[in-house]
Amino acid sequence: MIYPESLEKLINYYKKLPGIGEKNAERLALATLNFKEEDINKFSDALKEVKNKIRPCSICGYLSENDICEICENKRRNHNLICVTEDYKSAVSFEKAGNFNGVYHILNGLISPADNIGPENINLASLVKRVSDLDKPELILALKSTVEGETTTLYIKKIFEKKDVMISRLSYGIPMGAEIDYLDIITLDKALEDRKKISE
Amino acid sequence: MIYPESLEKLINYYKKLPGIGEKNAERLALATLNFKEEDINKFSDALKEVKNKIRPCSICGYLSENDICEICENKRRNHNLICVTEDYKSAVSFEKAGNFNGVYHILNGLISPADNIGPENINLASLVKRVSDLDKPELILALKSTVEGETTTLYIKKIFEKKDVMISRLSYGIPMGAEIDYLDIITLDKALEDRKKISE
Repeated sequence: MIYPESLEKLINYYKKLPGIGEKNAERLALATLNFKEEDINKFSDALKEVKNKIRPCSICGYLSENDICEICENKRRNHNLICVTEDYKSAVSFEKAGNFNGVYHILNGLISPADNIGPENINLASLVKRVSDLDKPELILALKSTVEGETTTLYIKKIFEKKDVMISRLSYGIPMGAEIDYLDIITLDKALEDRKKISE
Repeated sequence: MIYPESLEKLINYYKKLPGIGEKNAERLALATLNFKEEDINKFSDALKEVKNKIRPCSICGYLSENDICEICENKRRNHNLICVTEDYKSAVSFEKAGNFNGVYHILNGLISPADNIGPENINLASLVKRVSDLDKPELILALKSTVEGETTTLYIKKIFEKKDVMISRLSYGIPMGAEIDYLDIITLDKALEDRKKISE
């Protein structure tokens, strides 16, 4: 063994993190050795704390330290405008972009018959319940454009078909700043199909 | 705040690690959330354990959980052959290469007058003491070829000049597999100067 046992152990835990290979895990573990004792104790405590404290918001499924997350608690947000996402990571991206003033509903998955994931396996029942309490809500379906994403989008559209719910999806098109000649043809086709009139 | 407080805290600790930026720290913290509780507790404990257990070997300065490291304790290694390195990372590299059967002496720095680091600020006194107890030892100076490395090499050479100590340094030359036309001219000059006769 090249490293003492306790160090090997730490290297192995760093290796469990995404994108951290053998070399990098070694580097991180050795860097940890140079942390001040106080910092390493706080780091160690932070790890446990996160696991103990963070839970999904009981309304929307976003990350929270309380039963209801800060977004759902925020009275200045539009609670009639619900952005439906596959996971909390998408919601984090919208929060970072910073211009969305509605709330979220995190499905925690997408319908995927091939993987035996049906509508009952994702957070859809809670969405239906939530929406039924609202007056003329709008649902923005922010799901990816894969088979699973499209299936889920269609399914949700169908659930609310005869109810007074406005449903939209994100626009497809050319990413801002992208070179058109490097774009895949499906995106290009979509951008053409969904073209937007700009003349008067 | 986009993330709950405890998660922000963990992100900040990940950010203290080398090569881990904002985005990556977020990714690691979110991945940590998905760890099993048991794993996160062990990870957390491993961090504290490493800081508490690992110390420099009192003979050579290599990483150890005991007063004397496994390398210095190993009777099958040649304790008359000492490889002198700047830090334990170099020693780790030799251990990984796996063909060195001697022991190490880790200086924990290099002489650098510009930074006010003199011979008394690195682990040199212990090397002198160590060598004086040995019979016809060999010192391999495995220091980098910077001004500081060369200064330290020359200084050590001088200390042992009139004693019965063989001193060598690593060879300079072309790295294995390197393209000659991409090499820097100093390395190329050295490789020419240190050329090795291969005819009978």
